Amino acid sequence: MSEQSEVITKLLRPDSIAVIGAAREPNKIGHAIVKNLLRFSPSREKVFPINPNADEILGLKCYKSIKDVPHNVDLAVIAVPAKAVPQVLRECVEKGVKAIAIISAGFKEIGNVKEELELVEIARKGSARILGPNIIGVADTVKKVNASFIQQLPKEGNIAFISQSGALAIGLAGWTSLKQIGLSDLVSMGNKADLNEVDFIEYFGDDEYTKVITLYLEGVEDGRKFLEVSKKVSKKKPIIVLKPGKSERTSQAIRSHTGSLAGSDIAYEVAFKQAGIIRAPTIIELFDWAVAFNLLPLPRGENSVILTNGGGAGVMATDAAEEFKVKLMDIPNDLAEKLRKFMPPFGSVYNPVDLTGMASPSDYEGALKTLLEDDRVNNVIILYCHTAQTDPADVANAIIRAKSSVGKEKPITVCFIGGKECEDAMRMLISNGIPAYDTPEKAVSAIGQLLKYRRFLEKNKEEDMKEIKVDKSRAEKIIKAAIEEKRNILLPSEAAEVAKSYGIPVVDKVRVNTVEDAVKAANSVGYPVVLEVESPNILHKVDVGGIILNIKSQDEVRQAYEKIMKNVKEKAPNAEIRGIIVRKMVPQGRETAIGMHRDPTFGPLIMFGSGGTLIELYKDVAFRVTPLTKEDAEEMINETKASKLIEGIRGEKPSDKEKVKEIIIRIAKLAEDFPEIEDVDINPLFVYGVGDYNPPVLAADVKVVLKALNASQSH
Amino acid sequence: MSEQSEVITKLLRPDSIAVIGAAREPNKIGHAIVKNLLRFSPSREKVFPINPNADEILGLKCYKSIKDVPHNVDLAVIAVPAKAVPQVLRECVEKGVKAIAIISAGFKEIGNVKEELELVEIARKGSARILGPNIIGVADTVKKVNASFIQQLPKEGNIAFISQSGALAIGLAGWTSLKQIGLSDLVSMGNKADLNEVDFIEYFGDDEYTKVITLYLEGVEDGRKFLEVSKKVSKKKPIIVLKPGKSERTSQAIRSHTGSLAGSDIAYEVAFKQAGIIRAPTIIELFDWAVAFNLLPLPRGENSVILTNGGGAGVMATDAAEEFKVKLMDIPNDLAEKLRKFMPPFGSVYNPVDLTGMASPSDYEGALKTLLEDDRVNNVIILYCHTAQTDPADVANAIIRAKSSVGKEKPITVCFIGGKECEDAMRMLISNGIPAYDTPEKAVSAIGQLLKYRRFLEKNKEEDMKEIKVDKSRAEKIIKAAIEEKRNILLPSEAAEVAKSYGIPVVDKVRVNTVEDAVKAANSVGYPVVLEVESPNILHKVDVGGIILNIKSQDEVRQAYEKIMKNVKEKAPNAEIRGIIVRKMVPQGRETAIGMHRDPTFGPLIMFGSGGTLIELYKDVAFRVTPLTKEDAEEMINETKASKLIEGIRGEKPSDKEKVKEIIIRIAKLAEDFPEIEDVDINPLFVYGVGDYNPPVLAADVKVVLKALNASQSH
Repeated sequence: MSEQSEVITKLLRPDSIAVIGAAREPNKIGHAIVKNLLRFSPSREKVFPINPNADEILGLKCYKSIKDVPHNVDLAVIAVPAKAVPQVLRECVEKGVKAIAIISAGFKEIGNVKEELELVEIARKGSARILGPNIIGVADTVKKVNASFIQQLPKEGNIAFISQSGALAIGLAGWTSLKQIGLSDLVSMGNKADLNEVDFIEYFGDDEYTKVITLYLEGVEDGRKFLEVSKKVSKKKPIIVLKPGKSERTSQAIRSHTGSLAGSDIAYEVAFKQAGIIRAPTIIELFDWAVAFNLLPLPRGENSVILTNGGGAGVMATDAAEEFKVKLMDIPNDLAEKLRKFMPPFGSVYNPVDLTGMASPSDYEGALKTLLEDDRVNNVIILYCHTAQTDPADVANAIIRAKSSVGKEKPITVCFIGGKECEDAMRMLISNGIPAYDTPEKAVSAIGQLLKYRRFLEKNKEEDMKEIKVDKSRAEKIIKAAIEEKRNILLPSEAAEVAKSYGIPVVDKVRVNTVEDAVKAANSVGYPVVLEVESPNILHKVDVGGIILNIKSQDEVRQAYEKIMKNVKEKAPNAEIRGIIVRKMVPQGRETAIGMHRDPTFGPLIMFGSGGTLIELYKDVAFRVTPLTKEDAEEMINETKASKLIEGIRGEKPSDKEKVKEIIIRIAKLAEDFPEIEDVDINPLFVYGVGDYNPPVLAADVKVVLKALNASQSH
Repeated sequence: MSEQSEVITKLLRPDSIAVIGAAREPNKIGHAIVKNLLRFSPSREKVFPINPNADEILGLKCYKSIKDVPHNVDLAVIAVPAKAVPQVLRECVEKGVKAIAIISAGFKEIGNVKEELELVEIARKGSARILGPNIIGVADTVKKVNASFIQQLPKEGNIAFISQSGALAIGLAGWTSLKQIGLSDLVSMGNKADLNEVDFIEYFGDDEYTKVITLYLEGVEDGRKFLEVSKKVSKKKPIIVLKPGKSERTSQAIRSHTGSLAGSDIAYEVAFKQAGIIRAPTIIELFDWAVAFNLLPLPRGENSVILTNGGGAGVMATDAAEEFKVKLMDIPNDLAEKLRKFMPPFGSVYNPVDLTGMASPSDYEGALKTLLEDDRVNNVIILYCHTAQTDPADVANAIIRAKSSVGKEKPITVCFIGGKECEDAMRMLISNGIPAYDTPEKAVSAIGQLLKYRRFLEKNKEEDMKEIKVDKSRAEKIIKAAIEEKRNILLPSEAAEVAKSYGIPVVDKVRVNTVEDAVKAANSVGYPVVLEVESPNILHKVDVGGIILNIKSQDEVRQAYEKIMKNVKEKAPNAEIRGIIVRKMVPQGRETAIGMHRDPTFGPLIMFGSGGTLIELYKDVAFRVTPLTKEDAEEMINETKASKLIEGIRGEKPSDKEKVKEIIIRIAKLAEDFPEIEDVDINPLFVYGVGDYNPPVLAADVKVVLKALNASQSH
């Protein structure tokens, strides 16, 4: 057990506890905490109230200072006014206490940042760790410790709940008990001055009493660390997070397409996905899903079957199956024949399997046994609408019998629709290890989460970025030069050079303002070339004769230059002309885009999607945070409609998808190698049909933005 | 009261009831129905069991035939085997019974379509109306009639629930009672041989005992009638529908299951929207929202305020506000000052207004009163997390007091998060007319539905299609000619002509295969022209020299023709050349698209969205069913990203949106005028910046498909 792990065990499951600020007045928090500790903790002699002005509190001897306690103290709970906290904290450190929960408010949450930092400094000196300040305390059902002002200890169970909101934690302590949901621990993190979500995720990841980790998060402190630890822990047990804030827009200045396409929530969304964290939209789903993970084995495969006695419920479940990516298997003929025994002739052996309203408990039992015994079936979702002929308790018992008689470990969820009798029957199912819900959608979505988690576990998470060969020093020279010249936007030629040094093919191009420069440029990029006008006012260059293709010689360059200038002056006399672009003539490819935006929390956020001038209109893009695997790149592509462009639409040839994935990985590597780079935009990134052009993927335009100068100088 | 309305009243709220197939055996449905009628109906002497083999059932005299009953019969409930139904139905008709509920199954749902039609014919002869067959019966709380095999009568209330699924209806009868949700009537429609959703929507629209109409629907019988009636009724009271079938697999399940044809979901989605029907995703929302509509006044405006004691709950509610289009008003300074009195200094007067975890019941009362008294505030959403210092019952009472003391009719919803005490407090709130939910999202979404309904009521629903002038006879000639020639796809020139006769400007173009035809074509469309190759293999014509612009004379046409052929043979030697298109040279506009598809259930489904070659990739389109108002057209545009093209992106001029709306209406009129037309596609529809080109909106390509010949001949 690591040192940190030991401290957290003392924090959550202490043998001896001092309550600093313990009070005799029943309306004070310091009183409530001592009272709650005594109510639930088995050994009352190891609770030490600390109060300089009292001799006894709730029958316990009271000490003037923690230093007076004649026993070692695992956990100190501090509930004194903010001003007094540093002093009592110092005394804790002197006493040698390692785990300190600071309930007192009045720090960062009201602007007192300095005062909060001071607390951490004090603790550090004694190698002590702080939970809080501004917390409601901790509640643990393993050792029955209620070191909080929550009036009841949560129901015992195997779900850890970590909350960034104290009010919500109190509310949910009651709500989970009401819903018969058992918790191992309930942790309120408060201001997270020291211990935060990463520490608790790590701790519960190794905790034998916890099977599922759930969190209410408003933000994470260290995105990279969070990602790294969560990735490891979620391989051991599921992590479910409720993180609101989707509506929040990023307030920072946005200097790239990629940045403006990524709201502040996108980084959280993809970081959760990459770490295998399941994101719940509301507290209902958070605990619905946690219960399923707690009770059920993981699916061995994707094949799910819905068993119902009502067409309506079956249809709703089918919709939900599509939404939550639950694959309804085609029922093989031999299995269908077996199922027919448990339904009238007008029943259905399609999936949903409809036993009809005439289904008896023994029909449910028989059909469920049949499905559980069949190795082709991985998961079963059972729906039951209360009918006049059946007692829900009998149906529940039939389900329980079928499950225990077969003995194969397959996930089963249930939905009973009806009144009080159904509610009671569902409680019975749950206490027999079968999650039961009040809507078909919930029963399906729970299975959906299990499947999602299974897919995460099956993924290859080897990083593929290391194999990539790049010319880092070449890129480094260019970037350093720009920083020295105090420029934070690379020139187009520099950006192209950086891309090329990372193995990304780029269309050579030069902007010129004279005929002779155009000739020089054409000679350097190589014939044939294209000349086109650059003007912010001309959207369709073809319409005004502003572009000439397939220029093969110096003479043709000269003619083309003059002709474009003449055409544009004639057709668009008011357009501002910023020069003529001379570029190597490449065929028009399928327009995709790749970008990078450095997220302040999670670091490099890589983007891929449909490109072109309307990129911000259609927003057909996907994101991931680095490090990336090829599988991540594959997923990114597949999440976008641009994947269809790559596969070839309307009879086109497919493109080289592997190459696109490689370019995505290369951009990720560039971003990791150079923290100075803030944004990269490659748009369009031309993708060609296989064999149509070489290189098969080609960046037509590259933009690179560095960090603002004051920031980049710190590197 | 209309004749139909009288019959439905007899069906739901009969004074005298005959049960045909009444049985002495307790396990038979015919027994259960008599028993249920006696348990809940006040006047037992008006229940007449009919059974040729019994003298007495449950203490009532039994008759051999309904014709023997010495009293008039309002409702006949039939529960005999399918084979016997026609005979007893005939007897009902002979007896003069007008309302007949057929519980018996064994008709259309198992393929016996003809047998079901026979029932309708028998009933028609006596002007009787049938509910069913294959129903669970009806349950009415107004007259306390339980003519069903549901074991309990639903709780009394003002929500009508109409279900296409019998099993679901039984389940929900129990579930609504458990949740304290009151129903006026619960109607199971079964196979809908005669009476269907349209009849019941119409009935409950005028029913004084019903304030909210809710439905579970798998499909509608007559889409146009449904739309027409629902539009009228939803102006009087809200209609909430749960209609599954969004997934492909689900539509299959419905078809194979209840025999009802499921229209494509998009038509349902937009028909509901246009009729002001609110679509609920699950049964939870269906009743959550129904309760809100039942208890609350309609909002007078969009300004909503969230009042909370926890930041976490507030953030969740803010996310939900964005999702459900609930506008969180900016709190004016004077109001903020007043609210400050009810919170500590670190509270927040931004919206959500955060009273903090220290909020007492009197803080809630004061803040709520302040908000309700302020005329700028229209709606209030109150969130409360159970804290150690407050009793949820006290907070509930504070809310009730504030509401009743102010006396202004404003919608308030509440969310309490906590255990048993919160559940009890919420029950108290509900019985005081304040909807209370267990998550912030539910409290917000309920207000969101009220606002959505308010917006529907405020809409101008005048049809704008009548004002449009068109040359119908010109279009008619072309369409008739095609039908006579047994063609169901109009030639491009014919399609263009039809569009033009409906006032839609079209780019003139001709496909030719010789130089001289090209010259003729150029002369006819008018100079300057464009020549371009037509080939299925050439995607980017510019790249192969397959397009020449700005051709001003016959000579230039000849040169251009030869040059294109030469270029293409050189650059794309394997491309199949289908000819050369000669078209008037028009500038490239912003690419939008308009279309029409005739939906089998709802008729003409009009589409608008982003156009161009990638239309099917990006699917940026919106739909409406006809008839259309200009407001519908405006909404369609605004639902798409193409609206941004029309407004002008990246500094472009805006386009003439009114003109685009007019073109949408013109397509709708064309579709209504010609039932022979199955599909119309205009893509691209060029839209220009204001003043950039005349006409401001121009169809570059028009396709018109007629109904398959056997279908079109029936007109």
